[in-house]
Amino acid sequence: MASFSSRLNFVSQWPSPKKFGDDVLLIYDRIFDRHPKVASWVKQFPIRYAVKSGEDLKSLQSFPVHMNTILQKTHHLSARRLKIVVLGGGSVGDFGGFVASVYKRGVELIHIPSTWLSAMDSAHGGKTALNARGAKNQVGTFYPAKEVYLVKPLLLAQPAERGFEALGELIKMALLAGGPLYRKLNAVSTLNAGTLWQLLPLVIREKYKIVQKDPEEKKGLRHLLNFGHTMGHVFEAHYGLPHGVAVLAGLQFAMEWSYQKGFMNQKDYLKLMQAKFWQKAVKAKQQSAWKNLSMLALLSEKPQSFVRYLEQDKKKTSSQDLRFVFLKNPGKPVIAEVKVQDFLPEIARQQSFWG
Amino acid sequence: MASFSSRLNFVSQWPSPKKFGDDVLLIYDRIFDRHPKVASWVKQFPIRYAVKSGEDLKSLQSFPVHMNTILQKTHHLSARRLKIVVLGGGSVGDFGGFVASVYKRGVELIHIPSTWLSAMDSAHGGKTALNARGAKNQVGTFYPAKEVYLVKPLLLAQPAERGFEALGELIKMALLAGGPLYRKLNAVSTLNAGTLWQLLPLVIREKYKIVQKDPEEKKGLRHLLNFGHTMGHVFEAHYGLPHGVAVLAGLQFAMEWSYQKGFMNQKDYLKLMQAKFWQKAVKAKQQSAWKNLSMLALLSEKPQSFVRYLEQDKKKTSSQDLRFVFLKNPGKPVIAEVKVQDFLPEIARQQSFWG
Repeated sequence: MASFSSRLNFVSQWPSPKKFGDDVLLIYDRIFDRHPKVASWVKQFPIRYAVKSGEDLKSLQSFPVHMNTILQKTHHLSARRLKIVVLGGGSVGDFGGFVASVYKRGVELIHIPSTWLSAMDSAHGGKTALNARGAKNQVGTFYPAKEVYLVKPLLLAQPAERGFEALGELIKMALLAGGPLYRKLNAVSTLNAGTLWQLLPLVIREKYKIVQKDPEEKKGLRHLLNFGHTMGHVFEAHYGLPHGVAVLAGLQFAMEWSYQKGFMNQKDYLKLMQAKFWQKAVKAKQQSAWKNLSMLALLSEKPQSFVRYLEQDKKKTSSQDLRFVFLKNPGKPVIAEVKVQDFLPEIARQQSFWG
Repeated sequence: MASFSSRLNFVSQWPSPKKFGDDVLLIYDRIFDRHPKVASWVKQFPIRYAVKSGEDLKSLQSFPVHMNTILQKTHHLSARRLKIVVLGGGSVGDFGGFVASVYKRGVELIHIPSTWLSAMDSAHGGKTALNARGAKNQVGTFYPAKEVYLVKPLLLAQPAERGFEALGELIKMALLAGGPLYRKLNAVSTLNAGTLWQLLPLVIREKYKIVQKDPEEKKGLRHLLNFGHTMGHVFEAHYGLPHGVAVLAGLQFAMEWSYQKGFMNQKDYLKLMQAKFWQKAVKAKQQSAWKNLSMLALLSEKPQSFVRYLEQDKKKTSSQDLRFVFLKNPGKPVIAEVKVQDFLPEIARQQSFWG
């Protein structure tokens, strides 16, 4: 098992494929075959495996077919020296990371995340995953990449929309961490690709700080990264929202509940609600495809209809209750046990609050 | 990642299934349904998954079907608390260990090896594996069991034949380790179930000593455990011999070559050839189904016909050559790089030596 901290390379140019040596397999999102600049880089890898991104890629059912093809393509290489380079967003990273982790008991993994969300979050911390029986991430490993390349021209080439979809994880990390990241998030003039690139090193560093204290979620500390995710997962599953957008709403829910539960005092609450980053996030939302999305709309269902998603989340914990991340103030999260039934009055209360 | 040293429990009675808690899945060799004593123990596990042992169980192709069934059987349990108890020999252990390692990114694994070979070797050190494309162990993880139970009545109930098939790994460990294990192996009156049980704790301890220095085979130290295995794998693949029997022959080949190459001096060589454990191993062989097996018979093919197996082995290393474990004397192994072509004259020489 490598260290849980991957070596980070923030680069303004594509790394030369030669630097990965002769025994390399590139697993990449086939969408890049249509992007001439990326495609010409991809073609420098003699052995490559193109995949279609999305949750279907992560299906356990089709894993043997993928794996057999990958073994066949690489059978003449030394398993000891083999490096697997994975170019893509979250689903490609989850899949490629899992392949690297089980290929002859594990080969060197190098991530090149191609979306803001994967660059900030999923490429770091070693979670790999496949889906099974219609449920996400039922099968997987903890297998951190040896190196992660953050390639400026790749990330900046994304549609602006992808930037908005990453705000949930960005704001989550800033609220969990407080300090320099939180200050910098408030200080940037606007939230766009340029400022996301500036914030990226700090966001990643804060994630590693938490991951390293509890790499395999044995102590409950890594659970802090679930801030905003409990209701975020509910919104994601129920409405089919992109992960980052759902988490943004989940964060709002969690902050509001933190105040109601008394974890956050009124002064801190008011300060947070008026913080500059919120205004910028709201502005970014208004310029995105999600401009009509509101907490009121998300909470317009009967509270009871969210219960089954919450029950699902509960099974991931070792206790009888859900472990919910509350916030005292930026940099001071608190984990508390909450019963699924406790959500119902809070959802009802927030329905009228946001209404 | 747990420590690579599993907690060992040498017990003279079956452990109570209750001690594993409520969230437990038993994966077991279905052959035990026909053994009333074991079957009554098995039936105390409310959730269990019976498998047919053998290499087919380890097929990557059928893994999704197994895994989906296992997820379905356990979906109501807490993934955080889940323990997977695996009762069986090598193939069941390799499979069950892999399942535990990827079940929601890893749950607690408990091995109860049911054969001498798995009790001495494969249940320890964390190697899990599936087969793919007709080749063994192409997919797998390093995932040590939290605990291993060595259950005396289970191991002693095996046919005597299984004891003989474990001698290869036992003698290998004694030659690698030297010291107390080597002396004790020479001192026991005979090699039977009773003395195997006596030797078991020492054999396992010596394996962990090597594994802990290089748990994931990154430094080449763990490669020492391959002593006798290079030609052993050739014999196993070419003649379909049981692993332990093939390793026994592989050890003879390696010791003979060690002397020829000058790693072992004549005095040590003669002493080793006359060591008491050899006489006991020969006696055990004469009483086994393998009494007619000889090095001469194994080496009766054209040396060239073994090349493809050796080429296969070579790909596992990071160098251009094969890494072969030689012996100076008991407790003093030496790893040296050998070209595949170097085997041909040595095989030819041993053909006439054993003839």
